[in-house]
Amino acid sequence: MHTGCVVSCAGLAEPIPIIGGTGALGWGLARRWTEAGQAVVIGSRDTARAEQAAAKVREAVPEAEIEGLQNAEAATRGPIVILTVPFRAQSETLTNLKGALGEGQILVDCTVPVAAAVSGRATRTLGVWQGSAAQQAQEMVPDGVTVVSAFHTVSAPALAEKEEIAEDVLICGDRKADKARVAELVERIEGLRAVNAGALEMARIVETLTPLLISVNSRYKARTGIRVTGLPDSDHWA
Amino acid sequence: MHTGCVVSCAGLAEPIPIIGGTGALGWGLARRWTEAGQAVVIGSRDTARAEQAAAKVREAVPEAEIEGLQNAEAATRGPIVILTVPFRAQSETLTNLKGALGEGQILVDCTVPVAAAVSGRATRTLGVWQGSAAQQAQEMVPDGVTVVSAFHTVSAPALAEKEEIAEDVLICGDRKADKARVAELVERIEGLRAVNAGALEMARIVETLTPLLISVNSRYKARTGIRVTGLPDSDHWA
Repeated sequence: MHTGCVVSCAGLAEPIPIIGGTGALGWGLARRWTEAGQAVVIGSRDTARAEQAAAKVREAVPEAEIEGLQNAEAATRGPIVILTVPFRAQSETLTNLKGALGEGQILVDCTVPVAAAVSGRATRTLGVWQGSAAQQAQEMVPDGVTVVSAFHTVSAPALAEKEEIAEDVLICGDRKADKARVAELVERIEGLRAVNAGALEMARIVETLTPLLISVNSRYKARTGIRVTGLPDSDHWA
Repeated sequence: MHTGCVVSCAGLAEPIPIIGGTGALGWGLARRWTEAGQAVVIGSRDTARAEQAAAKVREAVPEAEIEGLQNAEAATRGPIVILTVPFRAQSETLTNLKGALGEGQILVDCTVPVAAAVSGRATRTLGVWQGSAAQQAQEMVPDGVTVVSAFHTVSAPALAEKEEIAEDVLICGDRKADKARVAELVERIEGLRAVNAGALEMARIVETLTPLLISVNSRYKARTGIRVTGLPDSDHWA
């Protein structure tokens, strides 16, 4: 597959900054991408915590190209920046990134507005004025930065613990070219297929799949994901 | 499988009334259930239209046990009543069924509050005050009738045209025993697996999967459905 082809895969030579990469989803993505030969920068509010998380990735993946930096510094290191912070930290984090993000970058928002952010249930969501956390992110990023929404249905522990997965990532965004670039990163992780779910506004639906899967998980004691059935085999992103 | 075992499968000896069974989803379900040896009653506001739809099922499935009746009469014919009307007709239909539905019946609500009901897009939803169309139904049915939500992600034309399917039906409801009875009907249709998605309030998420799949379908020229990955093989409903 893509393992080790950092040079031959266009656009992947630069690292992937993961803002909030010390959290479960961010760390799991860091593990999987470094395993696939992709360089990653873990961002955190606290440099020491970022370095610790990076060291933990190196333990799991000895050949990992990874470093830990403060969020704002991390965000400058690559063209496609992943945002994996809890909903209650999303707005503050984006405010702090205003000077770091710039023209042409893509911000991949993975935020889920679960009610747990305000001590409600993890199976319930909060209404976001803009429609979705991703649309809130689009409102907050500097001009020229586009937001793409992804990774809401992938189990963080399944990624982190190297379980075998075979599922889809639903991608929302307003420009197909941006979504295609994110799709390429998604599919560098073995077992993940990228599905074009539509415009960014569709994130208001996809973001609610996390609490739905949490509800299913609690009933089945499982780590579930989503697969879209009935799609053609051809490469939609080509 | 279950084909023809009307006597041996407890609880399935009575027909399944499908209110709004002249529509695409209702008709597709009627076709599949009659093919599996399950008796069906198609309900419509208009008796003649109900009889026409039943006749069309008989053309596709010569051995079908099926009849067409006016909605209120149809609703008295079986313990588990399927509601497959467009969102704009849901409230009026339930008002008209107030005298027909009674203690102990289960109403399976398949309603999707798509914005198309008020000339908006099929990829957008309307906010329902009660949280979801299913919860609106629960508020409207007579005491003693319980609402279970299902069938939102199954492609109506795929059912009607006898395409091969292999996907899940996400079931929401407040009592597992009621959901298990609906699950049994779901799994009489070849290729469908019933998944317990949680309490009835989770319908507000599952109902939005229809516009999400409509968005995917338009991009891929496909008839998609949903599969939950990572579930254990054991029978959750036993």
